[in-house]
Amino acid sequence: MSIMPITNQYVKDLDREYVFHSWSTQGTLNPLVIAGGEGCTVWDYDGKRYLDFSSQLVNTNLGHQHPAVIAAIQEQAATLTTIAPATANHMRGEAAKRIIEQAPEGFRKVFFTNGGADANENAIRMARLFTGRDKVLSSYRSYHGNTGSAIVATGDPRRVPNEYARGHVHFFTPYLYRSEFHAQTEAEETARALRHLRRVIESEGAQSIAAILLESLPGTAGVLMPSAAYMQGVRELANEFGILLILDEVMAGFGRTGKWFALEHYGVVPDLITFAKGVNSGYVPVGGVVISEPLSNYFDTHFFPGGLTYSGHPLAMASIVAAIDAMRKDGVVENALDIGSRCLGPRLRDLQQRHASIGEVRGAGVFWALEFVSDRDTRAPLAAQTMQALKAALIERGLLPFVVDNRIHVAPPCIISLAEVEAGIAILDEVIGAVLG
Amino acid sequence: MSIMPITNQYVKDLDREYVFHSWSTQGTLNPLVIAGGEGCTVWDYDGKRYLDFSSQLVNTNLGHQHPAVIAAIQEQAATLTTIAPATANHMRGEAAKRIIEQAPEGFRKVFFTNGGADANENAIRMARLFTGRDKVLSSYRSYHGNTGSAIVATGDPRRVPNEYARGHVHFFTPYLYRSEFHAQTEAEETARALRHLRRVIESEGAQSIAAILLESLPGTAGVLMPSAAYMQGVRELANEFGILLILDEVMAGFGRTGKWFALEHYGVVPDLITFAKGVNSGYVPVGGVVISEPLSNYFDTHFFPGGLTYSGHPLAMASIVAAIDAMRKDGVVENALDIGSRCLGPRLRDLQQRHASIGEVRGAGVFWALEFVSDRDTRAPLAAQTMQALKAALIERGLLPFVVDNRIHVAPPCIISLAEVEAGIAILDEVIGAVLG
Ligand SMILES: Cc1ncc(COP(=O)(O)O)c(C=O)c1O
Ligand SMILES: Cc1ncc(COP(=O)(O)O)c(C=O)c1O
Repeated sequence: MSIMPITNQYVKDLDREYVFHSWSTQGTLNPLVIAGGEGCTVWDYDGKRYLDFSSQLVNTNLGHQHPAVIAAIQEQAATLTTIAPATANHMRGEAAKRIIEQAPEGFRKVFFTNGGADANENAIRMARLFTGRDKVLSSYRSYHGNTGSAIVATGDPRRVPNEYARGHVHFFTPYLYRSEFHAQTEAEETARALRHLRRVIESEGAQSIAAILLESLPGTAGVLMPSAAYMQGVRELANEFGILLILDEVMAGFGRTGKWFALEHYGVVPDLITFAKGVNSGYVPVGGVVISEPLSNYFDTHFFPGGLTYSGHPLAMASIVAAIDAMRKDGVVENALDIGSRCLGPRLRDLQQRHASIGEVRGAGVFWALEFVSDRDTRAPLAAQTMQALKAALIERGLLPFVVDNRIHVAPPCIISLAEVEAGIAILDEVIGAVLG
Repeated sequence: MSIMPITNQYVKDLDREYVFHSWSTQGTLNPLVIAGGEGCTVWDYDGKRYLDFSSQLVNTNLGHQHPAVIAAIQEQAATLTTIAPATANHMRGEAAKRIIEQAPEGFRKVFFTNGGADANENAIRMARLFTGRDKVLSSYRSYHGNTGSAIVATGDPRRVPNEYARGHVHFFTPYLYRSEFHAQTEAEETARALRHLRRVIESEGAQSIAAILLESLPGTAGVLMPSAAYMQGVRELANEFGILLILDEVMAGFGRTGKWFALEHYGVVPDLITFAKGVNSGYVPVGGVVISEPLSNYFDTHFFPGGLTYSGHPLAMASIVAAIDAMRKDGVVENALDIGSRCLGPRLRDLQQRHASIGEVRGAGVFWALEFVSDRDTRAPLAAQTMQALKAALIERGLLPFVVDNRIHVAPPCIISLAEVEAGIAILDEVIGAVLG
């Protein structure tokens, strides 16, 4: 392309001249340049290395550049890169088969999309058509994607400038550390959150509600793992009122929590599961909906009015097949569970012991949040400016964090080693100490 | 994966067991199995070959498996498959630069998405934020994608079961062969369609309208190329009322009509351009928005509340760079123009001479529609059942057509040769004769 060696400056200049970025004020951007990566590490053109403690946007569950997945992409590229969704494609069938094998009993088919947002779009579409009802209930503390329907199902503030759709109702889900229900214990939080949901269903009119859409484990909202009793209670409410349950496993699925799907923590089976990210570690854009038998049967005889040009794209499909096979073969999900309980969780709790600014540590597997407070008693969130200083210092020291509001989310690849966890924790410890005293 | 050789039956069985298809009643599907492809040809596992006269979903503008693009995907896979959109990435900058180079004067930045639907989602979002207005006007004869906002902007019947959004208003655009305006000549159709649009703007309240969203050349709706005067008139109306003009080049862009962008046929410059498909021939899922200077400047100081995990995905970006470079080097756009005017257009018009069932032939470059009628005087559309028989016979004879309603769209790759055009025309000629007598 260019005869000169590529430099950080060249790439950054090109970016600032031509590339429009997500979720930003373009004039203030100073993006990090990344040249390559391997496993849990990425680097720039100067050779500066970063430990990826956020798996990019919590998607590289297999780490960067897993050789088996790279080889599968290259091989599929050589065979057949693209084909229309109306055809039958070998890798598409193999990918769907593997996802069904990993899903709970009773799931039958997979509809593929390009990412998480359109996965939720299509799950909502299926639920509305199947029930003949219109409304979708979802949590204020959620992110489901940024297309017209998915963004309005979203609960967090990214919804507000994008409310172009109708029939979306939001409610509060459990978050004991900042309870909406004045609860003191998890049992109380669970019971009150379920009562709140029942009251919202009754008040909206159960007959008008097609689906309850929940992240199995609300991720960007703060790694807010609910109790199993809550999730079971939601399933029971859905059953009682003939409402479908859609679980969004886009961020939590495929190993992130030490299970193939986070829903396994609760023993709850939804009607539809949406996925993206971890299914192929994001190596090729893809997402989808896993469809349970009643819905699969329904659409055997009813037209499904949804679609997209790249549904079941062969390159994405080959990467899913290789990624799931590699996760099985390498015991990646088991590693995430083991690392989380033996090392990452305990070390993060140690940090909380040493730093008064960490108000709560929550998580499972390789999916954790540190909640920073300026006062442990009032639980007042740490100032945004201080969080930015923390973030900058971590990057400076070679650790990529996932910072949201007053939280650092710790979400390394599921393949992370004990040594890498220790190295990352050491940087966190040092930086928190340096920035917050 | 499997030790047995792969067969058509195996792939079809796997598909029917596990894969949920777009735009279908699942129980009635009998999908074509495709094993591989090259140039304008694809084949199945029995070695049966098909001439691709639809470029899949009108996306493989470079044909199947263009070696330079395949190599670029493989190379990027080996370098860095995925990286978060907030970083700066070399190929992302190079891809955006090339798109800006091909766009009309005055365009500054590119926002990348995963496909056409989310390209339109984000263009609509930008227009609404920039103008502070809400409504979006678009044509009844259009398809803009199937996410919650994009599908309601869509005019064709795929919109109806999906009307979850608000503020979308539809109007009629020119279609002289079936005029909504009782017009006899193109000049009349143009003048009356513009008057209709003005009346809709006035009636909706110009102050409430953020954008007019139009396909530069309505594709799925029937390859309905408007007059340059119409498109210029739309631009003038938009200017008069402070409304933005978004041109959707998802299907028409990147060589399809013998121009880089179909808008070049009219000498009209919009405020935003959306693209997907032809930009990289669909080798990796991607789409995007090309942003003109005023909007680019606006978002330098205003937050843009849009985003997606795979915005500017490196694998997609590398394929765009290679695809645009190959199109430039091989003169692919010029070939599409030349083939269209010297051969494909004339041959399709010959078919019309020979077959009374062809009521109209329309198009440009390698983007054409044959409109089938049961009676040339009444222009009554040919029955759906007969169209299905035509489609089945064409596939049987080894030609992949794009059949919509009573039309066959002829949209081969832009690289097609004279010999391949002649071969495809011969099949069309024979099959139309055999099926329709
Ligand atoms: C739980 C959840 N759902 C959906 C999405 C949207 O996915 P995408 O960005 O691929 O559209 C995300 C993205 O972060 C997510 O975390
Ligand atoms: C003009 C136009 N816009 C948008 C789209 C939607 O693109 P995608 O299917 O990639 O979402 C299409 C798809 O056919 C199209 O033809």
